[in-house]
Amino acid sequence: MTTEKIGILHPGAMGISVAAAAQNSGHTVYWTSAGRSPHTHTRAQQHHLLDGQSLAALCHTCTMLISVCPPHAAEEVAQQVLARGFTGLFVDANAISPQRTRRIGEIMAASGVAFVDGGIIGGPAWQPHSTWLYLSGLEAERVAGCFANGPLETQIIGAEIGKASALKMCYAAYTKGTSALLAAILGTAESLAVRDELMQQWRRDDSNFPAQTENRVRRVTAKAWRFAGEMEEIAATFEAAGLPGGFHLAAAEVYTRLADFKGQEELPGLTAVLQALLKR
Amino acid sequence: MTTEKIGILHPGAMGISVAAAAQNSGHTVYWTSAGRSPHTHTRAQQHHLLDGQSLAALCHTCTMLISVCPPHAAEEVAQQVLARGFTGLFVDANAISPQRTRRIGEIMAASGVAFVDGGIIGGPAWQPHSTWLYLSGLEAERVAGCFANGPLETQIIGAEIGKASALKMCYAAYTKGTSALLAAILGTAESLAVRDELMQQWRRDDSNFPAQTENRVRRVTAKAWRFAGEMEEIAATFEAAGLPGGFHLAAAEVYTRLADFKGQEELPGLTAVLQALLKR
Repeated sequence: MTTEKIGILHPGAMGISVAAAAQNSGHTVYWTSAGRSPHTHTRAQQHHLLDGQSLAALCHTCTMLISVCPPHAAEEVAQQVLARGFTGLFVDANAISPQRTRRIGEIMAASGVAFVDGGIIGGPAWQPHSTWLYLSGLEAERVAGCFANGPLETQIIGAEIGKASALKMCYAAYTKGTSALLAAILGTAESLAVRDELMQQWRRDDSNFPAQTENRVRRVTAKAWRFAGEMEEIAATFEAAGLPGGFHLAAAEVYTRLADFKGQEELPGLTAVLQALLKR
Repeated sequence: MTTEKIGILHPGAMGISVAAAAQNSGHTVYWTSAGRSPHTHTRAQQHHLLDGQSLAALCHTCTMLISVCPPHAAEEVAQQVLARGFTGLFVDANAISPQRTRRIGEIMAASGVAFVDGGIIGGPAWQPHSTWLYLSGLEAERVAGCFANGPLETQIIGAEIGKASALKMCYAAYTKGTSALLAAILGTAESLAVRDELMQQWRRDDSNFPAQTENRVRRVTAKAWRFAGEMEEIAATFEAAGLPGGFHLAAAEVYTRLADFKGQEELPGLTAVLQALLKR
C-alpha cells in the first residue's frame, strides 16, 4: 500500500481524530498552522501532525487533502485549495447537502483534481465501531485504505458523488433535528407556563426522558454555533428531494439563538438556555 | 355529587371513551345522531349513549357539553352550540392552540356560558393510568368530577383558560412532530437512494429503531388527515410563544400528503407511504 501524505483541513475535535486514525494506518498527516486557533495548535502538536506552514506548501506536499470543517466553510476551503494548485485527491467530509458536494466535485473535476464525497457519522473517532466515514466516488477505495487499521470505520456506499453526503444529511436530520425540536418545545412550554406539567407527563411515559432531554438541550448549546449551518444544508437537501425544508430551517433558527454559548466553559442551566431561546 | 347530563360532540374513537368514563362515574351521556357517520352510530349504540337527536335538543337537555373533534372543527362546534342557546358548561377538549381556546372561551363568556379548557394526552381511555384529561379554568373541578371513577384520568393544572391546551400542544409537538420528521427523512433518503444505508446506520445505534420507525410511519397514515390541522395549531402555538413554527408547518405538509390513507383497511407498506410523500 502507498503511504499517503494527507493534509487535514482543519484539525478540530473531529478532524484530529481522523488525522490520528490515518497515522494509525501508517500514513503521514499534515496540517497548516497559518491562521488557526490556539486550540488547533495544541491538538496538532499533541498528535505530532507535521506543519505544512502555509496552505500553498501543504497543497504541494500532500497527495490527499481531507476537508473537515464547519458546513459554511466547505466551499471556500475547496476553492482555496484549487487556487493554490493542488493536484492530488480531495475528500470533502463535511456535513453539506449532496448538491453542494456535487458542485465542489464539479469544480475539482474541471481542474483535474480527483474527488471523493465523505460523510462522518458519530463523534470524534477514538474508539472502534463508534464513528463511520461513509464514502462515495470512483476513488473511494483509496480513501478507505487510509483508515484500514481504525478506529475510524469506513464504508463505501457507491460511486456517485453526493451519496455519502445524502446519508449524513438524513442521519443528522433526526439527531440534531430532534435536539432542536426539544429545545423549542421546552422554550414554548416555559413561555406558556407549562414546563413542569410537560416534564411530569413525559415522566409518566418514560421516567428517564425528562432528565435525558434536559441534558441533551443543555449539552447541544456548545455546538449550536456550527449546527445552524448544518441545519440549513439539511433543509436544502430535503427541498431538493421534494420534501419540506421547514423542520430544519426552524432548527437552524433555534441553533442560531443558542450560538452565543460557543466556548462557554460551564454547561448552562436549562433556564438560561430557554431564556436565550425566548430572547429575540 | 350532582349527576350531570353530558353531551359529547362527537363520539369518535377518543370521544366514545370519554363518554364511557363519564358513564362509569354515574353520569348520563348524550350524543346527537343527526349528520354523523355509520361508525359514530355504531359506537354510540354499543355504549348506550342517549340520542339527543338534534343539536338544538341536545343543547337544551345537557348541563355540560364536551367537544372532542378534529382541530379544524373546534371553533365551528363551539359556535353551533351557542347559536342553539346552550347555557350550561362547555368543555373544549380539542388539540388547538391556547389562543384559539381563549377565543372560544371569550365567545362563551360573552354569552354567559361557563367554559373549561381541556387537553387529552394518550389514546382512547380504556385503561387506567394511560390517558389524561388535563383541565384548566375556574370550573375545572366540576369537569374532573365527571370522571372520578376513571379510567380516564384527570388533572387540573390551573385556573387560566389556555393552559391545558398549551400542555397538549407541547406534548403533541414531540410525538406527532417526530413521526412526521421520520416520515420526511425516510422520504428524502428514498429519493436520494440511501434508505438502506440509513436503516443500517440506525441499526448500528439501536437494533430496534429501524423496525419501530417503519411501523410508526406506516401506522400514522390512518390519522394523517386530522393531524395536519393539529400541526398547524402547534405551529401557531410556537409562534405565539416566540419560537419558530416551521417544524410543525413542515409536519402539516407531510400529513397533508398522507391524508388519502384515511379509512384504508390495510396498513400500507413503507414504499407506498414514501411514494405518497414524494408525489407532488
